[in-house]
Amino acid sequence: MTVLGLDPGVATVGWGFVHYDGYRFSKPQYGALITPPKIPLERRLEMIYDELTKLIAELKPDYASIEELFFSKNITTGIAVAHARGVIMLACQKAGIPCYEFKPPQVKMAVVGYGNAEKKQVMQMTKMLLNLKEMPRPDDAADGLALAVCCAHSLGMASLRAKPQ
Amino acid sequence: MTVLGLDPGVATVGWGFVHYDGYRFSKPQYGALITPPKIPLERRLEMIYDELTKLIAELKPDYASIEELFFSKNITTGIAVAHARGVIMLACQKAGIPCYEFKPPQVKMAVVGYGNAEKKQVMQMTKMLLNLKEMPRPDDAADGLALAVCCAHSLGMASLRAKPQ
Repeated sequence: MTVLGLDPGVATVGWGFVHYDGYRFSKPQYGALITPPKIPLERRLEMIYDELTKLIAELKPDYASIEELFFSKNITTGIAVAHARGVIMLACQKAGIPCYEFKPPQVKMAVVGYGNAEKKQVMQMTKMLLNLKEMPRPDDAADGLALAVCCAHSLGMASLRAKPQ
Repeated sequence: MTVLGLDPGVATVGWGFVHYDGYRFSKPQYGALITPPKIPLERRLEMIYDELTKLIAELKPDYASIEELFFSKNITTGIAVAHARGVIMLACQKAGIPCYEFKPPQVKMAVVGYGNAEKKQVMQMTKMLLNLKEMPRPDDAADGLALAVCCAHSLGMASLRAKPQ
């Protein structure tokens, strides 16, 4: 299976793409969709939608894995991110890609085996699992990869569980 | 000018459409886009996007007036509404309709002349200004109309101010 992980944001949408055969990951790709700060929100949302639609058409993922919003700190930032997240979910839905959602502690648990892991540990472990030569940049791209790994693991486990004993 | 007011939500998007000649309002229309509760969020967002795109093509408004999010109470609800709001802004942007944003106190000020007005007063005043025979239902549609009135007033004032003295 192939999974596209997406870390939503208005300024930066981090993405990571992986192949997973149930045992190991291969052919990772990653990057970030960036929008300029000084244009209206609706224009930035359109850029995210158009760029993501292009990316999905190119990569043809089987599934999308989107970070679930989880706020304790800044509500204003959270509201802005949710605008982008709505548009990201719409792009996946329009492309017919099923969306799975994961909270940061679920991603940490899946990648590091510990829900309270440090961000750095998650990045290090993602790099190892995917056999990357260097740490993916920007951080949002690393988050996208970790989301893709989490989703692939979780769907892999679900399909194992679904097999007759 | 014609303005389409939009009160964002995942379950219900209230809308109100008005013509304004700088003195009075005419030909009001209103309604609500409803999404069923038991389907995934991404499907609901797609329904909102598609229905709104159809509505814009039909009404051909000059401007859209969208309620700005204003939270003191429920953050979880706010996050959900922001997803819908992102998709609503995208639909307006894709249709080439400029978006204006107003906070609830600005709408109250424009319609009733008092930023802390009760919801009922806003509805009553909207009904009067638009010469409606009955109170628009659901409440979200009334909010959509009030947003349209607020935006039309505000743009009307701006164009008066822009005229040479």
